[in-house]
Amino acid sequence: MAIFYQPNIRQGEHFLDSEESRHCARVLRKRPGDTIQIVDGLGTLFTAVIRDANPKKCTFDITDEHPQPRLDYSIHLLIAPTKNSDRMEWMVEKLTEIGIDAIQFVQCTHSERTVLKLERLQRKAISAMKQSERAFLPKLLPMVPLTSWKPMTTDNAQKYIAHLGEEPPADLFTASQAQGEYYVLVGPEGDFSQQEIDWAMDQGFQPVRLGHFRLRTETAGLSACHTLHLVNV
Amino acid sequence: MAIFYQPNIRQGEHFLDSEESRHCARVLRKRPGDTIQIVDGLGTLFTAVIRDANPKKCTFDITDEHPQPRLDYSIHLLIAPTKNSDRMEWMVEKLTEIGIDAIQFVQCTHSERTVLKLERLQRKAISAMKQSERAFLPKLLPMVPLTSWKPMTTDNAQKYIAHLGEEPPADLFTASQAQGEYYVLVGPEGDFSQQEIDWAMDQGFQPVRLGHFRLRTETAGLSACHTLHLVNV
Repeated sequence: MAIFYQPNIRQGEHFLDSEESRHCARVLRKRPGDTIQIVDGLGTLFTAVIRDANPKKCTFDITDEHPQPRLDYSIHLLIAPTKNSDRMEWMVEKLTEIGIDAIQFVQCTHSERTVLKLERLQRKAISAMKQSERAFLPKLLPMVPLTSWKPMTTDNAQKYIAHLGEEPPADLFTASQAQGEYYVLVGPEGDFSQQEIDWAMDQGFQPVRLGHFRLRTETAGLSACHTLHLVNV
Repeated sequence: MAIFYQPNIRQGEHFLDSEESRHCARVLRKRPGDTIQIVDGLGTLFTAVIRDANPKKCTFDITDEHPQPRLDYSIHLLIAPTKNSDRMEWMVEKLTEIGIDAIQFVQCTHSERTVLKLERLQRKAISAMKQSERAFLPKLLPMVPLTSWKPMTTDNAQKYIAHLGEEPPADLFTASQAQGEYYVLVGPEGDFSQQEIDWAMDQGFQPVRLGHFRLRTETAGLSACHTLHLVNV
């Protein structure tokens, strides 16, 4: 069944935005009385019936709601965007599919990309959420310089930096404990600067490795998130 | 350092193929006496010195060899290619990075793709292997109809099918045991046919799920492989 996105259902916005309305009424030719599904990106999948199939503002009445289970842990990825923006797009798509709470883009000294089209990534995330019938949309947070990032962490926070250093560190899988509020920091293609590593250590980030082999930035982001899900299986 | 690929080093082929020779001599402007690295895709990274920087057939002398550790388990993915070939390309790239032994493409009743450009996928795999400084190249096996696939499995084989069925099955992570010879079957976008599911059950494939949410075909393939690595951490 067709799935649409309306983040403000709880605030009473029982209509689709112009793009979704056009898709619903023009492309899929939905009519009044037809049933559709809507996700709010906050954890609930709604069933609704179309009231007015207006291609500019399609209105609906909610008939049922299905909250999806919340996890008892949260995953926050801090990542330096890759030079190639396609690689970030697919990472956002895959992370939305497997589930992540937030992706904070960070600018590092050796970052090759200093500008990020967050809107395009947002659209990828919404599309992936609908495709995988998920009701949670990850928060995509605009790029900040790494060392000015202020963690809003609780006592339950577990902070990891994917960095090899001199001694091979523990694998994220063995280093982390279940039910955490995880923050994983993945650096740019040119690696972290020494100053950034020192900053991370000061902030309590623990060095970890992600498997035995060098991974690309975007693969490291996905691998870290997947690993933390399995720590909680 | 530049890494090149020559699968037949052990058979005495101490030269690069025409494409690699051109890249070495013309693009990177390597000269006799320069040091390069070469992988054979079979587990060894070689250090070599260029003898003749011929852009059609660059020859070299091996000065050192570094075998990469072999894992005590093997992962074989059986997967129905996606309609969109880009999705298979990135999956092959990512699986090569995180490590997999073989990818067997299978044609299912509900497959939307019946032709596969294996050569292009092969090039993606070689490029990913070099990029991640891996010495192992996964075997990419040409498409066969699923039900005519003959497993060359040993007593140590663990066979799983990513299929939900009526009862939610165990997660692959909890169902599998370490040090196995794993065969994981991932179906097409249109799912398996009942006949294919019956065939898989007859062959001893055990139904598993990959996390809590519906994943795209290519995400399922990557997720399954990553999960099996973590079972062996």
